[in-house]
Amino acid sequence: MTQAAYYEGKRRIRHGPCELVEPACGEVQLKISHCGICGTDLHIYHGAMDARVRMPLVMGHEMSATVHKLGDGVADYEVGDKVVVMPLAPCGDCPACAAGHSHICHNLDFLGIDTPGAFQSYWTAPAYTLHRLPAQLSLKHGALIEPLAVACHDVRLAGVKPGDQVVVLGGGPIGMLVALVAKRYGAEVLVSEINPFRVELARNMGLAAVNPTDADLTQRVMEATGGAGADIVFEVSGSQAGASVMTELLRTRGLAVIVAIFAHPPTIDLFRFFWRELRLQGVRVYESQDFSAAIELAAQGALPLDELITDIRPLRALQSGFEDMDKGGQVMKILLEL
Amino acid sequence: MTQAAYYEGKRRIRHGPCELVEPACGEVQLKISHCGICGTDLHIYHGAMDARVRMPLVMGHEMSATVHKLGDGVADYEVGDKVVVMPLAPCGDCPACAAGHSHICHNLDFLGIDTPGAFQSYWTAPAYTLHRLPAQLSLKHGALIEPLAVACHDVRLAGVKPGDQVVVLGGGPIGMLVALVAKRYGAEVLVSEINPFRVELARNMGLAAVNPTDADLTQRVMEATGGAGADIVFEVSGSQAGASVMTELLRTRGLAVIVAIFAHPPTIDLFRFFWRELRLQGVRVYESQDFSAAIELAAQGALPLDELITDIRPLRALQSGFEDMDKGGQVMKILLEL
Repeated sequence: MTQAAYYEGKRRIRHGPCELVEPACGEVQLKISHCGICGTDLHIYHGAMDARVRMPLVMGHEMSATVHKLGDGVADYEVGDKVVVMPLAPCGDCPACAAGHSHICHNLDFLGIDTPGAFQSYWTAPAYTLHRLPAQLSLKHGALIEPLAVACHDVRLAGVKPGDQVVVLGGGPIGMLVALVAKRYGAEVLVSEINPFRVELARNMGLAAVNPTDADLTQRVMEATGGAGADIVFEVSGSQAGASVMTELLRTRGLAVIVAIFAHPPTIDLFRFFWRELRLQGVRVYESQDFSAAIELAAQGALPLDELITDIRPLRALQSGFEDMDKGGQVMKILLEL
Repeated sequence: MTQAAYYEGKRRIRHGPCELVEPACGEVQLKISHCGICGTDLHIYHGAMDARVRMPLVMGHEMSATVHKLGDGVADYEVGDKVVVMPLAPCGDCPACAAGHSHICHNLDFLGIDTPGAFQSYWTAPAYTLHRLPAQLSLKHGALIEPLAVACHDVRLAGVKPGDQVVVLGGGPIGMLVALVAKRYGAEVLVSEINPFRVELARNMGLAAVNPTDADLTQRVMEATGGAGADIVFEVSGSQAGASVMTELLRTRGLAVIVAIFAHPPTIDLFRFFWRELRLQGVRVYESQDFSAAIELAAQGALPLDELITDIRPLRALQSGFEDMDKGGQVMKILLEL
């Protein structure tokens, strides 16, 4: 029996049968194994993207699957292969694509947002979006590849080097993964997070963590760096508080990386950017090499991925998953199992 | 007869005799030839930096001079040499100096702001701050080396390449010099400026210029770039309008360079930084290599420096110079001749 979760607006998810889509030429039909709930899915559930999405919408893009059926012309995969999808379908024709930045295409089709996604038993996607999982990587961990690829992209564009002093503002799933990848690449990492459950979880994963409502974050960073400041601050909180403190924390020519989605433009201390020759870089999604890096990191088994997964539930529990995320508390990454 | 201009607070400049300072070991006494009025001098004149400066203050750092007297241990210069001063005395000991960023030293002594400057007949400065002017470069043009070095620094840190689409927001002296240097390095440059006199002056110097109160700047940039946007925007206006439009103008992964001093933190569209993976870089003063580059560019005679100098007045006219700058209108760079 097939199933799918449909977003119908107004915080309502309907459970129904999955509509099977035959794979066209160059496409693959996938049997979904796991799919995580992303902050963007929550945003859609809240109705904040109703102007962009077409309802009823099958969301879901943090997925793992096995290949179920091949369309014509697909030579690189076989039925039964374990795969993940890099859920970006660029137009190939806009100035961003022409400049080699197709992951931030001006007309990007984000699978699971602009077109149907993976909260369903079977999903048909272009073969060029697939990345194969190695044998030793479980389908459960495979569902973390997409957010891990975000972290790999962010850390790569930031140019994190061994010994760098790195601060991550915001310890949600993406912030934690950024911190773990930066640490894996040799940086000294400090996570700043106000939710006590997440602070403890960070520490359980071997990350240094501070709650800025309990301790003076700036003082802590200055003490750790001999008064110089951090080399890199990842802003993953999306808050004015984060946007304000990031400029205080950075050393001369330090780099602020904007990972968070700021719904409202914050005030930014541009004088400090001038005064210390600070740099800032926005980062968005990932490129193919980041998916490869994420798969390699996950397959090495060196990241505490199980700690990040606070729940595995059936697809039917998507609505309750959203409700638990809204409540905050003891939630990090919720996976749905199909 | 010697003379000096003393800032005494409350928009008051007193004219009096120059206090001669014997050059100590490693110092040089200079006979000042020309000294330009900088926007920072105007800022001091307004009282905005009264908490930082010690009165009475001899301002002035955009200067040219001849060597008048050598202190002990100065082997690289001779009496009569034409020189300019790079007016930075770093502490050598702070984290910024340790990181090789001594031009933005945490304890920087900016000559002419934190200690006496060049609005006087004779000025004594450390020999290590000097740069020699070649024979073909006049002392008049020499007084533009300091602001030109700012422009060289900004263009260098921005990584301007031939063919780059560059927009300069704000056509004051620094904005104009940034535009001229970027153009000289092969960029396609557009200056945006609201003062009609300055728009015309930019065009007289061979720069494309637009008045954003008359024309749609964003539309103009998009038309010129096939909808892609500019590679680099130099924000030299220090205004919210500039801080807002810069993110609209940039292509994917484009760079906003913060040259202006923002007295108040503006709101910044960080969503756009995320969405297009934009970059931002603060830039401040210059390093020694930028002084060398500025001297070389000026000596080549390829920049329309005479167009930038709208007035040459005696030192006694410093106060009237400030007053004319405050009025706006037909003023660009005012030089004082000693």
